[in-house]
Amino acid sequence: MAAYDTKLQHILQSAARIFAAHGYEKASLRDISRETEMSLAGLYHYFRSKEELLFLIADTTFATIWQRLEAALAPVKGKPLPPETQIRRLIHNHLDYYISHRAEMKVLSVDSDALTGEWSKRFHERKRRYTAQCIEILQALARERGLPLDAAACRLSALALFGMMNWLYQWYDPRRDGDANLLTERMAGIFLCGFLAEGKGGQMPNAEPVRSARHGLFGTPRAE
Amino acid sequence: MAAYDTKLQHILQSAARIFAAHGYEKASLRDISRETEMSLAGLYHYFRSKEELLFLIADTTFATIWQRLEAALAPVKGKPLPPETQIRRLIHNHLDYYISHRAEMKVLSVDSDALTGEWSKRFHERKRRYTAQCIEILQALARERGLPLDAAACRLSALALFGMMNWLYQWYDPRRDGDANLLTERMAGIFLCGFLAEGKGGQMPNAEPVRSARHGLFGTPRAE
Repeated sequence: MAAYDTKLQHILQSAARIFAAHGYEKASLRDISRETEMSLAGLYHYFRSKEELLFLIADTTFATIWQRLEAALAPVKGKPLPPETQIRRLIHNHLDYYISHRAEMKVLSVDSDALTGEWSKRFHERKRRYTAQCIEILQALARERGLPLDAAACRLSALALFGMMNWLYQWYDPRRDGDANLLTERMAGIFLCGFLAEGKGGQMPNAEPVRSARHGLFGTPRAE
Repeated sequence: MAAYDTKLQHILQSAARIFAAHGYEKASLRDISRETEMSLAGLYHYFRSKEELLFLIADTTFATIWQRLEAALAPVKGKPLPPETQIRRLIHNHLDYYISHRAEMKVLSVDSDALTGEWSKRFHERKRRYTAQCIEILQALARERGLPLDAAACRLSALALFGMMNWLYQWYDPRRDGDANLLTERMAGIFLCGFLAEGKGGQMPNAEPVRSARHGLFGTPRAE
């Protein structure tokens, strides 16, 4: 059983590299056979189709991120962590995993769109749960600080945050852009300062008058 | 000539829909022939390969965004707009085009990765110029407000902003998430408040003590 798991992990890592490099649609099982140094028949012992392989990569990646997040958010002596700490830990967990598993995260961010039917359904259930967790933390943070941000505003903020992080695969260069700690500081800094200031009605430190932030260029007063 | 251009535009719009729906690799010229109601021979009058078609969609989309941005940023009576206005207009221009051309923007954000050789080179030159414009505005904003943000910090912030916006294709629902004006207010609000507060060393409105924002969880003091 341990040998089976080790082999499967080797296959998933190799396949993630191939998918990330060539794109899921273009990559063939023959490419994966070459990369893993396993025969096609040997590979079919672990999955039944290229789509199942894609699902397995996306699913195990998500499962790992989720487990690590649960550990990072665990209450200390029965007391839940403050919401700001929770959101910083979510960001750090996501970025830390991302930059040490870039192939898997590109597959998760981009190629997973190719999943269909039951695979797609199971994948989107994980994604929905992960997003919901982030939205919940933001709602708790808004409540704690007395900010009038409703579920819709927290949802949009959560999705803006995931966009900020998931776009990494397009530009991240470890020599230039620093490690997960530095990225977390920068992104959590931008996101949290922005989220909290937005919630206060756009009181930007050192900013132009609030009027310009609220109604300035485009004339539309905010909906709430 | 006008007829040629009209037809080409029709082809690019139809092909963008097909690429966005099925993915570039999976979509066939036969799908595009069906969608445009043109023969394959007729299509080849406008481009020589599926890759050239992908390039044409990405290139004309980028060219349009760029032209509209130049118009939005044009100096008034010879005086450049304030940097904060410029960055708000860049965000509005991007989001406004994005939500009215979602197929093209998905192709631009995702499928354009499939471009190779000279096509890829020309596409990345446009992308580089667009990103550089955003970084320049952020640097001007930082200078104006006396914020100690160097080119690397402005680059990371610009890429975080593009991530926030380009991820839209994954979740944007016009009935739920509002129009370009509302999205601009929200995203510009989060981004600008965060960028400016970060530049001040993380003075978050209504925040936990600065120490926790700077060194709190992960132990690494910031690099600068």
